[in-house]
Amino acid sequence: MNYYREHQAEFLEGLKTFLRIPSISALSEHKPDIRRAAEFARAELEAAGLSAELIEGEGNPLVYGEWLGAPCKPTILFYGHYDVQPPDPLDEWKSPPFEPEVRGDDIFARGAVDDKGQLLIQVNAVKALMATTGRLPVNVKFLLEGEEETGGEHIEAYVKTRPPKLKADAAVICDTEMFAPELPTICVGLRGMVYYEIFVEGANHDLHSGVYGGAAPNPFQAMAEIICALKDRDGRILIPGFYDRVVPPSAKEREAWARLPFDEKEYTEKEMGARELVGEPGVPLFERVWARPTLEVHGIRGGFTGEGAKTVIPARAVAKISTRLVADQQVDESIAQFTAAVMAAAPRGVKVEVKPLHSGAPSLTDPDNPFIHAAAQALKEAWGKDTVYIRSGGSIPIVGVFDRYLGIPSVMMGFGLPDDNLHAPNEKFHLPNFYRGIETVAKYLEILGR
Amino acid sequence: MNYYREHQAEFLEGLKTFLRIPSISALSEHKPDIRRAAEFARAELEAAGLSAELIEGEGNPLVYGEWLGAPCKPTILFYGHYDVQPPDPLDEWKSPPFEPEVRGDDIFARGAVDDKGQLLIQVNAVKALMATTGRLPVNVKFLLEGEEETGGEHIEAYVKTRPPKLKADAAVICDTEMFAPELPTICVGLRGMVYYEIFVEGANHDLHSGVYGGAAPNPFQAMAEIICALKDRDGRILIPGFYDRVVPPSAKEREAWARLPFDEKEYTEKEMGARELVGEPGVPLFERVWARPTLEVHGIRGGFTGEGAKTVIPARAVAKISTRLVADQQVDESIAQFTAAVMAAAPRGVKVEVKPLHSGAPSLTDPDNPFIHAAAQALKEAWGKDTVYIRSGGSIPIVGVFDRYLGIPSVMMGFGLPDDNLHAPNEKFHLPNFYRGIETVAKYLEILGR
Repeated sequence: MNYYREHQAEFLEGLKTFLRIPSISALSEHKPDIRRAAEFARAELEAAGLSAELIEGEGNPLVYGEWLGAPCKPTILFYGHYDVQPPDPLDEWKSPPFEPEVRGDDIFARGAVDDKGQLLIQVNAVKALMATTGRLPVNVKFLLEGEEETGGEHIEAYVKTRPPKLKADAAVICDTEMFAPELPTICVGLRGMVYYEIFVEGANHDLHSGVYGGAAPNPFQAMAEIICALKDRDGRILIPGFYDRVVPPSAKEREAWARLPFDEKEYTEKEMGARELVGEPGVPLFERVWARPTLEVHGIRGGFTGEGAKTVIPARAVAKISTRLVADQQVDESIAQFTAAVMAAAPRGVKVEVKPLHSGAPSLTDPDNPFIHAAAQALKEAWGKDTVYIRSGGSIPIVGVFDRYLGIPSVMMGFGLPDDNLHAPNEKFHLPNFYRGIETVAKYLEILGR
Repeated sequence: MNYYREHQAEFLEGLKTFLRIPSISALSEHKPDIRRAAEFARAELEAAGLSAELIEGEGNPLVYGEWLGAPCKPTILFYGHYDVQPPDPLDEWKSPPFEPEVRGDDIFARGAVDDKGQLLIQVNAVKALMATTGRLPVNVKFLLEGEEETGGEHIEAYVKTRPPKLKADAAVICDTEMFAPELPTICVGLRGMVYYEIFVEGANHDLHSGVYGGAAPNPFQAMAEIICALKDRDGRILIPGFYDRVVPPSAKEREAWARLPFDEKEYTEKEMGARELVGEPGVPLFERVWARPTLEVHGIRGGFTGEGAKTVIPARAVAKISTRLVADQQVDESIAQFTAAVMAAAPRGVKVEVKPLHSGAPSLTDPDNPFIHAAAQALKEAWGKDTVYIRSGGSIPIVGVFDRYLGIPSVMMGFGLPDDNLHAPNEKFHLPNFYRGIETVAKYLEILGR
């Protein structure tokens, strides 16, 4: 396939341009960048030969594109997101997060793999087929959003209305990773999540810890007590009822996971940069990160954290905490359980409020599905190896939304690598995977068109 | 005493000028302001008729002044500090912290009562006596520092050398408060303190909480566990041995405290702005805040605390925590106990480090002392009421330092009020107390000179 090799410089240039746009959906001052990124994505779809438009609504614009010139052939709905995570802590980046830099075979930038690089794999695959054959082997639609990193509320609201535009036979999502370099991977399960803020207020103003220490409630102490009441030292969640609906993996799945090529020392020390693995005792690692709910504290705002010493009992503390959910946990039920547990744990003297910021349901897809079989075949042709089926501990809420409102399965074929520093400083994308991903998706459409 | 009334405008103007200097010792960018504040204090001492100089050393300059024209009379060493606490949270101030504003009878600014206003009470008392009589009834020395809010390390190092300059019969410190408005008060006990930073590190970089949640250590969860292991829900410190040396108040002291005019509802709701009082069950309030050690979390740095949702397992968390100590707890022993308890509480997978930032010993003065008796008499003459003896929960480490290295007692005669918002937004000083404080200190020197 000469076309792909000849156009690598062009693919790379497009990716760099996309990565230079700091389309951070969590920070409202980046609204103009969000729009620039949406416009860029639309222009790329048009350059690929699709008709494209922005769908304006309450939140960040959706980007829609289509090519429907293959009657009697299936219709594939590609999904991706053009927004990115905030880049902080900035001082840990080796090159600035929005000035993409190629070092060796990798391109470093916020959004490189999550999801701008993988989004462009899909677009470039379509562009390549159109450029070389003048048409596509199947009908193709694109739906790209700009709020994936902040909950995807508005795409969900749009899909809920079941617009005829979105009618398709399957969705394809390139927002996951390969289990190991050169190992073609399809992800069949995702954790859901609920992201919370917990507000704790003691006195209505900061108090001197000398004068009032021993009399005043301390919201940070209270927050620590709440956090310890939610999860124990071993990583077991203590929220009553939280595990009740958890479906354990099948014996077949557990066996397949146990056979995956895996070097625990490498994973712990190199990939994570940690001293040791923690988590529920007796539960194997892949089950802990793919098939068990978890709870993590992301940060606690409030109080004095500057240089030096300020002896203050802070008036308030705000913790950012999320739970990951697995099939068959229900989002609403889990929010009620979480909230009740927080309230029950609050000590005397403080006012506590729980605010869920956003959520997404967990999903689990049956791998016995023709669209997944075709993907496995395309991956085998492009990478020369049998595909492994894994799950992911991350959350892609749109999968549950497509399932629920459009009644279609999602094929999660991802080209990231485990050390891509997702959501962290020095995020990267392995360029050979970028280029071969484009070929893989093009092959996939060809196989589906046969 | 007409002089005092006639010069109120001048006293106020001097105070305002002093308060406009943001001499925040905790923030290194305010070094130039520290120096300006020191120069201002020196100039004020000279204006009062003393010879004065800056004593330069490793830290912020000390300001020294003296008038030794009363042979055979006692020598009083006045102490004060010209540095202030950081003003954050800035948005809770009704007027900017370094633009003093008089509203009603109060002047609002950072440092108004702690300690610039009270420092100037001492200087203005001397100035008034010099202006009206051309001399002082006793010998007077001043030692003012610029690091009280960050631990006072360098004044301690200086006093430790027992310089002949500091030879005196007693120290006078105006850095405490009156128990209630119009109630003359002498403070005879102070809590000591140790201010710590606890560093907890999990992985060496932030990790995606979806991908690694269930495998990665979370430093915020670990910090919560450490905090809960240090103090229980009721406010009881759990550090082994921490209470062993605590001396309970005498029966006489407890009785006197129980007779103090006190409205618990007013104290809780108005002064503290809290819902209810907390702390060790069964221990009376004044004993909890004056005579029992406490432990407070001031803030936790690290992780994601911005707008929106970032699903990160933070690499590290840094907590600012202090303990207050009471007689006869030993600073070094308490640091060893604290550190051991933190280390023992650390869960698997994290690296923990404890760093004491600064410390001060607790102090307890015998009220049967001629310098304290004279102070009680001056207060009675100026305020028309018997003096009450209390303790303070705050820490003024210099009291222990004067006791240990100069062998002199400290008379803590303060003119702050309980609602002065010490260390908090909208710090204020009640101007009638400022003016009457000046008269009181002048009377005190007259009584001592008889």
